[in-house]
Amino acid sequence: MINHQILLAELPEGALQERHFATATSRVADPGPGEVLVRTILLSIDPATRAWMAGRTYRSQLQADTVMPGFAVAEVLAGDLPAGTVVACETGWQEYAVLPVKAARPIQVRSKLSHYLGALGITGLTAYFGLLDVGRPNPGDTVVISAAAGATGSVAGQLARRHGCRVVGITGSAAKNRLLEAELGFDATLNHHSPALYDDLKGACPTGVDVYFDNVGGRVLETVLPQMNTHGTIVCCGVVSQYDTTAPAPGPRSVPGLLVTKRLRMQGFLVTDYRDRWATAETQLAGLISSGELKVVEEIIDGLDNAPRALIGLLAGENLGKRIVRAGKDPS
Amino acid sequence: MINHQILLAELPEGALQERHFATATSRVADPGPGEVLVRTILLSIDPATRAWMAGRTYRSQLQADTVMPGFAVAEVLAGDLPAGTVVACETGWQEYAVLPVKAARPIQVRSKLSHYLGALGITGLTAYFGLLDVGRPNPGDTVVISAAAGATGSVAGQLARRHGCRVVGITGSAAKNRLLEAELGFDATLNHHSPALYDDLKGACPTGVDVYFDNVGGRVLETVLPQMNTHGTIVCCGVVSQYDTTAPAPGPRSVPGLLVTKRLRMQGFLVTDYRDRWATAETQLAGLISSGELKVVEEIIDGLDNAPRALIGLLAGENLGKRIVRAGKDPS
Repeated sequence: MINHQILLAELPEGALQERHFATATSRVADPGPGEVLVRTILLSIDPATRAWMAGRTYRSQLQADTVMPGFAVAEVLAGDLPAGTVVACETGWQEYAVLPVKAARPIQVRSKLSHYLGALGITGLTAYFGLLDVGRPNPGDTVVISAAAGATGSVAGQLARRHGCRVVGITGSAAKNRLLEAELGFDATLNHHSPALYDDLKGACPTGVDVYFDNVGGRVLETVLPQMNTHGTIVCCGVVSQYDTTAPAPGPRSVPGLLVTKRLRMQGFLVTDYRDRWATAETQLAGLISSGELKVVEEIIDGLDNAPRALIGLLAGENLGKRIVRAGKDPS
Repeated sequence: MINHQILLAELPEGALQERHFATATSRVADPGPGEVLVRTILLSIDPATRAWMAGRTYRSQLQADTVMPGFAVAEVLAGDLPAGTVVACETGWQEYAVLPVKAARPIQVRSKLSHYLGALGITGLTAYFGLLDVGRPNPGDTVVISAAAGATGSVAGQLARRHGCRVVGITGSAAKNRLLEAELGFDATLNHHSPALYDDLKGACPTGVDVYFDNVGGRVLETVLPQMNTHGTIVCCGVVSQYDTTAPAPGPRSVPGLLVTKRLRMQGFLVTDYRDRWATAETQLAGLISSGELKVVEEIIDGLDNAPRALIGLLAGENLGKRIVRAGKDPS
């Protein structure tokens, strides 16, 4: 059996381009003891993978000429789990992967498979714990969310709305903003390309910002900071504005001064810190999806070969909700 | 009765200088109903007053041609508290002040009066709540403290040591560092003027930094950030490196990226948020002073007219511990 793979051929300097990737084929290995062979069905496309190219983060820096890493929903073909079991795992950008059994989390499929990469997967759980455990808004609070039409932002916004908050989303396009207001219940939206972003935000948040769920960092963070209310919280979830570059911008000018005068809490987190509560959160999120209270925004791109373009476009903000590549037949 | 006063004559552009101050005299007013007339005994010299000149903080920006604000220990002369009562209050830089009774907090004098401006006053309480409530170190943690020989840092360091932490102090002078190690029990000290500060810190914190009590911001914060341990905490207490300038430096480059990857909490606070627990904390700190477990580092400069020079020197890092101006006869 031949494995079709996509390699990170070269670590990018500056913006990521298609030439940084290469295709390869290899023979599929047999799973050893304690391992499984899986077939990739759906592949998650994530901005954080660009950060992994730039240096050491919470995992080692990626190396050139290795298979691009990536989360997936996959089907067990052989090994120490029953064939046909659907698992969430890190296959990387390839059709087949051999993994330790404990690195493959079996999924009780109650929803579309794609949901397990988005609203019921890493990004949905990230939104859940980031908003509720780190942000901890009170009903009536104003919650601002950047990259609000993204996989994490779109879930965080809907959860905040359901929690009784006034929710203001920031994106880079009018089309995204229309979707947020018309379909997802956002109270107001802003476009970060606006030259008057500071005033736009002031207009949308007449009583200031209590919780800022930050997916982007950079200029948007610097704009929101002075409009935070006393004792407000900034949930540091991602820095997508700074991933696709080798020259990150200076930090926000008002840190740490404003943190003192306004007694702000600025806190980073990773969804993996909450692993022991994933199952509970997933059940809650699945309930909200089936009752229609949580709308899933996702786009599925066909073909493993399109993964590089899908990631490059994601980093440019092209995506609407969770971006997924369908690498193989989806039985759901 | 004539009141001798020091005014902020002009809002500074750039570094604060003596010419920004002026002396004035006025007649002492009689206290009205609900007021007290007090005589200033000891005046607290605080870096934050420089930040109050630069713009709105947690209080309005200072105005030119008004009495310099400042905390003091004072004696009631007349009005709605018994004459002779010693109070902590904000007299400003003047010999006499008329205040609302509720703005004067009577002190049960159990210690030297100067202690009520330092280790038992705003700065000691700031160290107490900043370290224990915001920083929340565990015994065995490595705690780094900047401006460690200052009024707040010297108390925070001793409290952390007593809490079972490894304590590393950063100051700008070898003499300060000798004092911290020889007298106050700091495990190690660093000089922020060192060109190898990053490596010095690495040497002093072989297992990384768990809690950073930041009094300075700027380059020192940027140096400590990448050496924070996962789930570490940065207590944002002050930004003294940025007060005496009209061109504050850009923010730390690794914010917010590093906050995400290392899951850091960066939190500002003001001692006034803990007012309902001041009395308890003061009693604890007073107990530690009388048992000799908490050493008070302070310097007292005679004469109200020396207050401007005292503040200018404080902003340049000249002080060793709490800097106080004796404005009038101290009965203690």
